Amino acid sequence: MKIAIQGAAGSFHHLAAERWYGAGAQIITCETFQAVFWALDDRKAEYAVCAIENSLYGSINEVYDLLLQHQYPIVGELPEHIHQQLIGLPGARINQITHVYSHPVALNQCRDFLDSSLPQAERIEHHDTAEAVALITRLGDPANAAIAGHTAAQLHGAQILSHDIEDEATNFTRFLILEPSKPDVSGANKASLVIRAPHAPGALHRALGIFAALDINLTKLHSRPIRGQVWKYQFFVDILADRDRLDAALPRLAGLGCDVTVLGHYLAAEEIEVD
Amino acid sequence: MKIAIQGAAGSFHHLAAERWYGAGAQIITCETFQAVFWALDDRKAEYAVCAIENSLYGSINEVYDLLLQHQYPIVGELPEHIHQQLIGLPGARINQITHVYSHPVALNQCRDFLDSSLPQAERIEHHDTAEAVALITRLGDPANAAIAGHTAAQLHGAQILSHDIEDEATNFTRFLILEPSKPDVSGANKASLVIRAPHAPGALHRALGIFAALDINLTKLHSRPIRGQVWKYQFFVDILADRDRLDAALPRLAGLGCDVTVLGHYLAAEEIEVD
Repeated sequence: MKIAIQGAAGSFHHLAAERWYGAGAQIITCETFQAVFWALDDRKAEYAVCAIENSLYGSINEVYDLLLQHQYPIVGELPEHIHQQLIGLPGARINQITHVYSHPVALNQCRDFLDSSLPQAERIEHHDTAEAVALITRLGDPANAAIAGHTAAQLHGAQILSHDIEDEATNFTRFLILEPSKPDVSGANKASLVIRAPHAPGALHRALGIFAALDINLTKLHSRPIRGQVWKYQFFVDILADRDRLDAALPRLAGLGCDVTVLGHYLAAEEIEVD
Repeated sequence: MKIAIQGAAGSFHHLAAERWYGAGAQIITCETFQAVFWALDDRKAEYAVCAIENSLYGSINEVYDLLLQHQYPIVGELPEHIHQQLIGLPGARINQITHVYSHPVALNQCRDFLDSSLPQAERIEHHDTAEAVALITRLGDPANAAIAGHTAAQLHGAQILSHDIEDEATNFTRFLILEPSKPDVSGANKASLVIRAPHAPGALHRALGIFAALDINLTKLHSRPIRGQVWKYQFFVDILADRDRLDAALPRLAGLGCDVTVLGHYLAAEEIEVD
């Protein structure tokens, strides 16, 4: 079972993949989101685990565009509570730290901590959180620290100098599970759609009215430009709908002149609990 | 008249600022979008010109968040047709080029051109298009090229080796004009709002219904997470509405329990013409 993820071993994608598929899964690490989809195209991986949004940072536009381009079926979603750790070499002390390496999003998520606890330390952007831990291990200087998840510290034999240093407790990333070979999920109650409404006043309002009339809840609506049509948008919509309601909504949307693509029909994750 | 822009002299922001304010404007260059808003906070600049979306790449989330945090009034919008140029040293020839420097978005916008015309050239990411031209000028090696707008070539005495190399002809960036001291625009017909609808099924549909009932066209709807409320969103909405219609819509939205912030009421740009 080969699972493509964006990022390195020990990354939050790795954590999510193991939570979904178990620790025995073989991880295919990919440098970019584009490379994750290429790994599915080339059958180097059978499945993919791909972040779609973060509760602070928002939607990952590139992944939305890739989902529509490739249309590999979404078969599940997994929200992961993101905890960032300040990681140093074994024996390092926090008051020695002069340089902190991490992905810019992680540095940003820990800005208050860095401002108050490490105001003198230089922040250096790296392309991956777990790779930043690998880097400081390779450099071997106890004045270097990295910000990453705890699995990256374990993987590289590094030490957590300060736990859960993220500024906002409610920091969740939602991951999608893509399985090209197995699109049908029994008991599915959530669907991800892409809707292109006709270019007419009120068209989006009328499309959303179909969901309202069928008692279908909208959990997400995200707009993306339509390439080649300046200032025209398509809408990525997540709805809570079982098979019957989805089957009722689709022809009604078509009846309004909407062009609809179903990206997946899957089980909604449990309500988020802030642990 | 001091105008803050993100990016360097010769950048597309610079071009937009001169188109709006004329060539005599004094430009305050800022490394980040955050720094543009700080320049207004600190009164180092009286105005700002700030990209909000690109017709291919989509919305610039950071700018949406900064607009809401700072609430400097939007007094205008300016769509700018983006043309990318391959720029080299004077006398350089395109078949000499081994390295191409530019901002990752610009490199991405010219991917087909680079693949077909410069397949061997290494692509090197730089934080700013115009600064990439300054860099190759400083390096002085005719094997280096940069991708940027034509004003950057002029500014740095460099030469355009290949014109309008962007892959998609319909590449527009929309800029907003912020003027803290002069929020009222006569004849305004477009408004930018942020709507937080109550967390209830159908709430967004009902809010959009108010615009439909008042014959108010929606030109943009973009969702952003609400910090601290996991998987809850606020909606940045652009509507075509004169003073009377805006004044009619706002109390009706409030009546639905929506929390609405008006970011600006200004003149809509003319229809886009693909020149």
